[in-house]
Amino acid sequence: MIYLDNAATTLQKPEAVYRRVAECLPLCANPGRSGHRLSVQTARAVYDARETVAAFFGIADAMRVVFGLNCTDALNLALHGGLQSGDHVVTTSVEHNSVLRPLNALALQGVAHTIIETGPGGTLDMAAVAAAIRPDTKMLAVTHASNLTGILNPLAELGALCRKHGILLLVDAAQSAGCVPIDVQALQIDLLAVPGHKALFGIQGTGFLYVGPRAHLREVRQGGTGSQSSQPFQPDVLPDRYESGTLNVPGIVSVAAGIEYINTVGIEAVEAHDRALAKQMLEGLAAIPGVTVYGNADAARRLPVVAFNIAGLPSAETATRLDIDYDIAARSGFHCAPLAHRSFGTANEGSVRISGSWFTTRQDVEAALRAVEALAKKA
Amino acid sequence: MIYLDNAATTLQKPEAVYRRVAECLPLCANPGRSGHRLSVQTARAVYDARETVAAFFGIADAMRVVFGLNCTDALNLALHGGLQSGDHVVTTSVEHNSVLRPLNALALQGVAHTIIETGPGGTLDMAAVAAAIRPDTKMLAVTHASNLTGILNPLAELGALCRKHGILLLVDAAQSAGCVPIDVQALQIDLLAVPGHKALFGIQGTGFLYVGPRAHLREVRQGGTGSQSSQPFQPDVLPDRYESGTLNVPGIVSVAAGIEYINTVGIEAVEAHDRALAKQMLEGLAAIPGVTVYGNADAARRLPVVAFNIAGLPSAETATRLDIDYDIAARSGFHCAPLAHRSFGTANEGSVRISGSWFTTRQDVEAALRAVEALAKKA
Repeated sequence: MIYLDNAATTLQKPEAVYRRVAECLPLCANPGRSGHRLSVQTARAVYDARETVAAFFGIADAMRVVFGLNCTDALNLALHGGLQSGDHVVTTSVEHNSVLRPLNALALQGVAHTIIETGPGGTLDMAAVAAAIRPDTKMLAVTHASNLTGILNPLAELGALCRKHGILLLVDAAQSAGCVPIDVQALQIDLLAVPGHKALFGIQGTGFLYVGPRAHLREVRQGGTGSQSSQPFQPDVLPDRYESGTLNVPGIVSVAAGIEYINTVGIEAVEAHDRALAKQMLEGLAAIPGVTVYGNADAARRLPVVAFNIAGLPSAETATRLDIDYDIAARSGFHCAPLAHRSFGTANEGSVRISGSWFTTRQDVEAALRAVEALAKKA
Repeated sequence: MIYLDNAATTLQKPEAVYRRVAECLPLCANPGRSGHRLSVQTARAVYDARETVAAFFGIADAMRVVFGLNCTDALNLALHGGLQSGDHVVTTSVEHNSVLRPLNALALQGVAHTIIETGPGGTLDMAAVAAAIRPDTKMLAVTHASNLTGILNPLAELGALCRKHGILLLVDAAQSAGCVPIDVQALQIDLLAVPGHKALFGIQGTGFLYVGPRAHLREVRQGGTGSQSSQPFQPDVLPDRYESGTLNVPGIVSVAAGIEYINTVGIEAVEAHDRALAKQMLEGLAAIPGVTVYGNADAARRLPVVAFNIAGLPSAETATRLDIDYDIAARSGFHCAPLAHRSFGTANEGSVRISGSWFTTRQDVEAALRAVEALAKKA
């Protein structure tokens, strides 16, 4: 099988990730709850993972890494915890439902938002973003890379803009974390939401939010923290305030193992690999008669996440044929990004998405291109 | 090492649990997102696990099993999703902070609560519970078993009481699920919160909430559900409404493997084993001069979770000595149950807790008793 659904979850992980999970499980006590050596050792493993995450993203204080269920959970903490009635948020039309749906829910509670339309190119208009910032704007919530087109947004510029206006920058790094370098200090990111199971190669069930010193969030979940147990409210201390209940220790250590693997090969090598894959996908698909590729074709600004359609073939049918006839796993439909499809004019039919990872080869992409070509010829 | 901290997390799991996780990981696509065979197969594994969970707890509709991060996450969904300003909740003094802290946070939003004091016996006074129900009472939120003393609350009676008054019964089964039979229909439970990593023997990072047909919860997290992606709000369909973002698939299948193991040995066998352990712990500790055991000593109504102190020895010191000198893992302190400690008169010093599981032997408990005896002699 050729797996090109890495934007949903990376299937192939470094062996070290599986090994770390297998080593962790039989010794996995409850971290930060008890004082016995195994609990302390487990807490130490979580602490080490927090440090690994922090170092990878340029986070000065590892205690500002808050672990949760997934990237959606992290985004919900940032949005529900950081916004209240009377606030205004600027966001974009290429956001995932993990940003749009919380914002729509918050709109019913008096949190307004403005959506910047990218248009069919899928590229953010910086002037439009700047113009949308109002006196009551509290936050810019933006994806680092579209989960539909892989188009990267210019975080450094957005970070500078947010600081200039004194607003918070929330970045959804669901697609980009592990693919391109992200330094929260250099990029001036206040809140960074990251899934563990995508390009960081962790197992499912873990994500985290970096909570920068300019962000003051209410917690969205209360419970046992193992700290200040006699206090009726959440302790103020980080990360305990935002981490209630037993942590996903195997998931957390798996993320650290994934990051260590990336550090070994080098994030720049991953970035170059991904750029080459994106170029191959974009150029290869564009060259096939009857295929429409969505978004600007500048591969230097894209991850290997590409949406397309074959004229005369519904996207679901294309994905099914790729799967059944060619053993290629792709994804069709709306990819939880409804407004992006509106921008691309595919709000009715959706599109097919192929997405690669560090473990995807040129041969994999070539096979997919030949399969798409054959399907387009028959369509 | 003798591990007696099973109330925090069970350390030893059935081999089948590890095996199932190891089998799952290399084939773990994103369930319910894509249409390719591997994604469908992953979705099927989650569906099967949901059915296994449902059957184990007498849940008629498996779609009413909502998976999340942990039991705390499940309790937060029940409390924050089920209550609003003007509502009143009845709860007890033996609740964990995973119930008390959300209720304290909700109190600031106009949700009142009444706490039924158990007193030093730790047993719930049913008349007091009934008397606390007011016209504005919406819910009774009660633990099935205290995480400090293992004392079981009479769920059947509580269920009948709640139906009589037309209020919801929320049960925190953090300690009891997997130890004693729980049938949500027979017991008339509307909301059941369960951790995956305790007596169900799953790995950490998974818990779930059963949402009964009488409960109508708002979701507390919004995001991608892979369903009705073009809709700006959460889909109404269960479990999607409450499950946003990528599920913890390895965690979920591990819980199913744990339940299958329990089904093989029989929950009645587990119950009998636990009762024998509880009796041994309670009688053994009570017989040691200088040891105080908390709560009523009726082992028939208790899980093998026992809190005690040695006269003249701080609880933290006892746990440290057990760990260092005897290689016995126990937990000291407040166990995230501050009001229970007030009931037992241990609000200042906390207590030591030992807790067993199906894998705990009489020999383990005997060794712990002899260690406590030796420490008490020296104290």
